[in-house]
Amino acid sequence: MTITRNDPGKVLSRTVEYNGVVYVAGLTADNRAASMKDQTTEILRKIDAALEKAGTSKSRLLTTTVYVSDMSQKEEMNQAWLAWIDPNNPPTRATVGTVLGTPDTLVEIVVSAAK
Amino acid sequence: MTITRNDPGKVLSRTVEYNGVVYVAGLTADNRAASMKDQTTEILRKIDAALEKAGTSKSRLLTTTVYVSDMSQKEEMNQAWLAWIDPNNPPTRATVGTVLGTPDTLVEIVVSAAK
Amino acid sequence: MTITRNDPGKVLSRTVEYNGVVYVAGLTADNRAASMKDQTTEILRKIDAALEKAGTSKSRLLTTTVYVSDMSQKEEMNQAWLAWIDPNNPPTRATVGTVLGTPDTLVEIVVSAAK
Repeated sequence: MTITRNDPGKVLSRTVEYNGVVYVAGLTADNRAASMKDQTTEILRKIDAALEKAGTSKSRLLTTTVYVSDMSQKEEMNQAWLAWIDPNNPPTRATVGTVLGTPDTLVEIVVSAAK
Repeated sequence: MTITRNDPGKVLSRTVEYNGVVYVAGLTADNRAASMKDQTTEILRKIDAALEKAGTSKSRLLTTTVYVSDMSQKEEMNQAWLAWIDPNNPPTRATVGTVLGTPDTLVEIVVSAAK
Repeated sequence: MTITRNDPGKVLSRTVEYNGVVYVAGLTADNRAASMKDQTTEILRKIDAALEKAGTSKSRLLTTTVYVSDMSQKEEMNQAWLAWIDPNNPPTRATVGTVLGTPDTLVEIVVSAAK
């Protein structure tokens, strides 16, 4: 079976498709001066674009992992999440607190979706 | 191919089935006064129930990620793990220390299994 | 469909194959006196061996998760990464800072690959 790599860079591909599943790389916000809520909203827009490019959408999400820099702000992330997900088709999710790539990176999200 | 979502809530689905794989959301214990070993045991029972509902079992586990709040207590988690897994069919596993949803959440476990 | 488990141990299998995907357990370096760069290089060699045993290679990587103990040393990990990956076939990747199994474990890497 064929592997399709979208937007391959030097370090990683933004998405990889294989056997009916689209895997999206860990995405972070460009505007790191923004709040956790706004960083999450920016990331979710990037995920929409990545999924669309791979021929699928948030309604076909399978799994998600949300890495937050400060668990005490988790509800901010959740507000952006609830405004975004398809309420009829929620994916699985795990949310854990980790150190992220830069001190002002407040959220990183990894998703997989069915084609 | 069809996506099946079991126990969908507002935020996430407890399990999602697609293309022969069952993905289970990050599960935590309800009894957060319990030790890491006992929280792990409670989570593993929840995983059994989620897998059963999706028509599979721990003997068909593929991957697991164990998030622990305190790596120095990892052996407690391991004791519950070893008492639970099918010794003939161990999945892959990664165990990392992260901040979890509440200060008394000591373990969160994510698994995937074949149908 | 059949599940193939390679190098099953008491706690986990090093790799699990199912439905055309090879899942590799979280791998760490044996030489924990080494730098983050050298620990990463050792892990990547282990991943090569695990993938080869399962009949695939780094050119067919799908997803990767890199757990680092100290994000300020991420560039060391990246140097080893860039020296290793197939530049025509980069996988997705997420890199997060977590506590690892022992204080001198500086990196843990989880990958999946297509057969």
